[in-house]
Amino acid sequence: MNTVTQAPSLTDDQIGELGQQLRVDAVRAAAAAGSGHPTSSMSAADLVAVLLARHLRYDFDHPEHPGNDHLIFSKGHASPLLYAAYKAAGAITEDELLTTYRKLGGRLEGHPTPKLPWVDVATGSLGQGLPIGVGVAMAGKRLDHLPYRTWVLCGDSELAEGSVWEAFEQAGIEGLDNLTAIIDVNRLGQRGPTRHGWDLDAYARRISAFGWHTLQIDGHDIGAVDAAMAEAGASRGAPTAIIARTRKGKGVAAVEDREGMHGKPVPDAGEAVRELGGVRELRIEVRHPEPAERPAHGGDPKAALPAYDLGDEVATRTAFGEALTVTGTRREDVVVLDGEVGDSTKAELFAKEHPERYIECYIAEQQLIGTAVGIGVCGWQPYAGTFAAFLTRAHDFLRMAAVSRSDLNVFGSHAGVGIGEDGPSQMALEDLAMMRSIHGSTVLYPCDANQTAQLVPAMADRAGITYLRTSRGNTPVIYAPGEEFPIGGSRVLRSGHDDEVTLIGAGVTLHEALTAADRLADHGIRARVIDLYSVKPVDARTLRTAAEDTGRFVTAEDHHPEGGLADAVLESFGNGHPMPLLTRLAVHSMPGSATPKEQLHAAGIDADAITAAARKLVGR
Amino acid sequence: MNTVTQAPSLTDDQIGELGQQLRVDAVRAAAAAGSGHPTSSMSAADLVAVLLARHLRYDFDHPEHPGNDHLIFSKGHASPLLYAAYKAAGAITEDELLTTYRKLGGRLEGHPTPKLPWVDVATGSLGQGLPIGVGVAMAGKRLDHLPYRTWVLCGDSELAEGSVWEAFEQAGIEGLDNLTAIIDVNRLGQRGPTRHGWDLDAYARRISAFGWHTLQIDGHDIGAVDAAMAEAGASRGAPTAIIARTRKGKGVAAVEDREGMHGKPVPDAGEAVRELGGVRELRIEVRHPEPAERPAHGGDPKAALPAYDLGDEVATRTAFGEALTVTGTRREDVVVLDGEVGDSTKAELFAKEHPERYIECYIAEQQLIGTAVGIGVCGWQPYAGTFAAFLTRAHDFLRMAAVSRSDLNVFGSHAGVGIGEDGPSQMALEDLAMMRSIHGSTVLYPCDANQTAQLVPAMADRAGITYLRTSRGNTPVIYAPGEEFPIGGSRVLRSGHDDEVTLIGAGVTLHEALTAADRLADHGIRARVIDLYSVKPVDARTLRTAAEDTGRFVTAEDHHPEGGLADAVLESFGNGHPMPLLTRLAVHSMPGSATPKEQLHAAGIDADAITAAARKLVGR
Repeated sequence: MNTVTQAPSLTDDQIGELGQQLRVDAVRAAAAAGSGHPTSSMSAADLVAVLLARHLRYDFDHPEHPGNDHLIFSKGHASPLLYAAYKAAGAITEDELLTTYRKLGGRLEGHPTPKLPWVDVATGSLGQGLPIGVGVAMAGKRLDHLPYRTWVLCGDSELAEGSVWEAFEQAGIEGLDNLTAIIDVNRLGQRGPTRHGWDLDAYARRISAFGWHTLQIDGHDIGAVDAAMAEAGASRGAPTAIIARTRKGKGVAAVEDREGMHGKPVPDAGEAVRELGGVRELRIEVRHPEPAERPAHGGDPKAALPAYDLGDEVATRTAFGEALTVTGTRREDVVVLDGEVGDSTKAELFAKEHPERYIECYIAEQQLIGTAVGIGVCGWQPYAGTFAAFLTRAHDFLRMAAVSRSDLNVFGSHAGVGIGEDGPSQMALEDLAMMRSIHGSTVLYPCDANQTAQLVPAMADRAGITYLRTSRGNTPVIYAPGEEFPIGGSRVLRSGHDDEVTLIGAGVTLHEALTAADRLADHGIRARVIDLYSVKPVDARTLRTAAEDTGRFVTAEDHHPEGGLADAVLESFGNGHPMPLLTRLAVHSMPGSATPKEQLHAAGIDADAITAAARKLVGR
Repeated sequence: MNTVTQAPSLTDDQIGELGQQLRVDAVRAAAAAGSGHPTSSMSAADLVAVLLARHLRYDFDHPEHPGNDHLIFSKGHASPLLYAAYKAAGAITEDELLTTYRKLGGRLEGHPTPKLPWVDVATGSLGQGLPIGVGVAMAGKRLDHLPYRTWVLCGDSELAEGSVWEAFEQAGIEGLDNLTAIIDVNRLGQRGPTRHGWDLDAYARRISAFGWHTLQIDGHDIGAVDAAMAEAGASRGAPTAIIARTRKGKGVAAVEDREGMHGKPVPDAGEAVRELGGVRELRIEVRHPEPAERPAHGGDPKAALPAYDLGDEVATRTAFGEALTVTGTRREDVVVLDGEVGDSTKAELFAKEHPERYIECYIAEQQLIGTAVGIGVCGWQPYAGTFAAFLTRAHDFLRMAAVSRSDLNVFGSHAGVGIGEDGPSQMALEDLAMMRSIHGSTVLYPCDANQTAQLVPAMADRAGITYLRTSRGNTPVIYAPGEEFPIGGSRVLRSGHDDEVTLIGAGVTLHEALTAADRLADHGIRARVIDLYSVKPVDARTLRTAAEDTGRFVTAEDHHPEGGLADAVLESFGNGHPMPLLTRLAVHSMPGSATPKEQLHAAGIDADAITAAARKLVGR
């Protein structure tokens, strides 16, 4: 039972002992919890021991230190190993490890989350740690200009995920020599052998083809691991992948390199601990980083938002791009990320003004969001976007970004059938459902240019995932420049004491609702009109008042009927509030090609349809 | 103005003429439509001309011919080229091309869809054609044992998509020598130059590292294209990628190899047609395939579904796996696809019985769905699944599968907080929202083993995307074996003429609702209980009757509040039906690790919460 504190002077044998301690602690933690992934931890224990003792630079007392390295466990199920390492570094106690892991209210969750101050991002959905690590490394190299390194521990199974290859590609092209992927090739996935088993060459061929420096080692040879990490640290111009042959469950014969031993405690923990040489109490002083400071983020907070004249026809995507550019002038922490459609989303307007804070991610939406999450870890304020339809590509990254407690601004253009001729492959008709269902999200859908301009900078002040949906075509400017549109609000555009029906729209359908209100007036029907630009949170008070006043709602949305505007409206009437009669107009059929006007008509969400639905509800 | 019909005997010069004709027709079609992608068509025109004249085997009069090759335009925006090729093959008329392209009601949409009988799948969301082509080629090689070839035309920009690398990996490992990817390297994406420009080596290095045979050619050299396609056809043991250097807008100086010319008609179509040598009327007789027959799909339709005893505790995922196995015995067209979690989803039970119809796709969910769509094109009945949470990875593929009019069965296990200790990364809490918002989808969420067993074979009889959500933990068997559960139905489990409130659950929450009903009875409150196993379509009649009878609903769902069970319930009250008072219980907070029971309690969706909500609604 030794206590070692001068980490850099540890011998290889002592580091081997540390590896055994990490295994013992992983075995004990999973046994105490009754679940977990000790065998996936044991394969990587020597890799992590060497990293901790010799290469990581991290101040566990100051996780916010800008010079800290970043350690991301992309194979998040190896959390017992991560927590065992935290214990060895003195960051958590043995008691916490053995009594709270995977327990209610604890912070040592089954897969790591930023409830722990040393965890940058949640992992556990495989294939996300490397893309996010690429973002962190991009921040270090292109934005922060700080010498921290990013270490990502990957499993071999997860290399089947395309997202990992998006990451290899971006990191290779960007020459991220501050990034090291440590690949734990234990040859066994959850269900059985991986595709490539212990064929390290198969991985090396692929990864080096993407411009990486690759090293193949025995992951249980302390000296070899150390040399590889040193070489990774010295590499210039390219990221390094350390491809390590390991044995799952290493050190315990009952589970070592055996199928069917994934994701469960070892059969006899006591025997396993004995086999591993018993409990140790090594304590590592991880080397601290050099003093470092993040660049101060200045900006001109008074820079004026674009202003549009009432009655002009302007696309909300254009107003978005122009307001985003000003937001970047106001706040120098704003970074914009594009999925090779910046000319369409109008994000490229930002690039012209602030090229050093514009990151082109090409057509790789998972990496787009991964990069955004990664730079967000480093204190930058990302705005990432593409066509709204293609954000579905990054759904799992967005879901996990919420678990990571990321503050992330997402924009999606070309929403709905209103795009016209390009047809359904390009039309977002499920993005509101997707973004509303993300935990803690905000969903905004402006209808005019001045409203858009106000909402764009407000996104950055909002916690969590904030989504802005923009439209391709021009819409009339109906709000004066400078009018305010608080998130969570709405705008009542037509209202009277004897309104008989409420018409609710957002984006393109708001204008259809206004036209419908005029037509209804011709029929002697008084209609209230609500612009529901804040889809989540929704303005429950205004909607409830409208329900009390009019008793009848017609909602119209350029979206499939499920999960969008109508559902947001009805959410206001949870917890037993009396609900209005409601007719839900949405895109029920599969669109084809047609002009925008024809599309809105065919889908039954234009002024004609709203007028007819309202007349039917009112009964005249 | 020649007419050529003996395609195989065309000279290279004549094929060059055909390439010019395809360009002319693409230019004319886009000009007539006022939108479209002629320049992206012109780069690939010679590639398609050679394919059509010398290598494709296809009977345009019999698109259902099982021996037909498959031609997938992964770069779907080059639809003018595809339609020009159809015209050259005599499948469509010049009139249809020039008057209906991108027009309301036409079948020549902005991006190809299976409205056209020769289009296998919709494309337009980039990076999907190759994964689906891999599925088609898998069907040919492993299931149909037919000699058809699959040709996929890819853009260079779309190679940034990780999904494409999932496809390269699967095709390489499977040795799909019946698959050829033709990569149109025109160096210009939508926004500007691609990452690799004309560096064909960069593509070849990457693709060959994944086990493909690669060829680099000048894509405008007819002889070189022909030789490459011949070599691809003769390749054994590996798929071939023809990496072709081309010029975007080739043949028209005003647009050729120029930035800013993506996705719009050429500036002067008349001048462009003249520059291209004028209108031609070449007509190609594409070589027909040899006679071929698909294997007959037999099976034992009387094979008995598994039966579970009332009161036993069985996980729905287990019943799913057992029923799936029987479904495979009943129907020999059933193929099961796994994302390397078959031991958890229990799909591997099928593998033991029907190994020849089980496809392991490893942890690559986009390719999982891509393969499923591809084998579906060939008449197989796919069931594809993984943890429900990770289906979000394939959201865009599922969205596009609906545009493709695919009949696809999808299963997702480990739904909701009910999984317990693993934490939020593994919990599907947005899958119902995602799957409900897919056009034409069916969403099923059984609560017991016998119900699950009945629903599994019914999925295969259902058109469109059908999703089954299963749970990790055991739930009591409450239905007798053989009871019927029609899709679109529900089950009223407690009911009386003086019910004061209706409790609605599905899956794990249904059992909580039953417990709550018992407790409410102790308080003298009569509660109706509805098992809403068919979340979409939903049983509107039963819900409306319950609303009339009780006036008060409590919904409880192991899902985020948006887009799930409660929203499905409220959909029944669209079109002006009077709505009940409703309290919506769902997972509002971010879960951590805990036991399943603790999770349901913490989320406020257990019997305690349902009882309290119902008492509050009733007022005693």
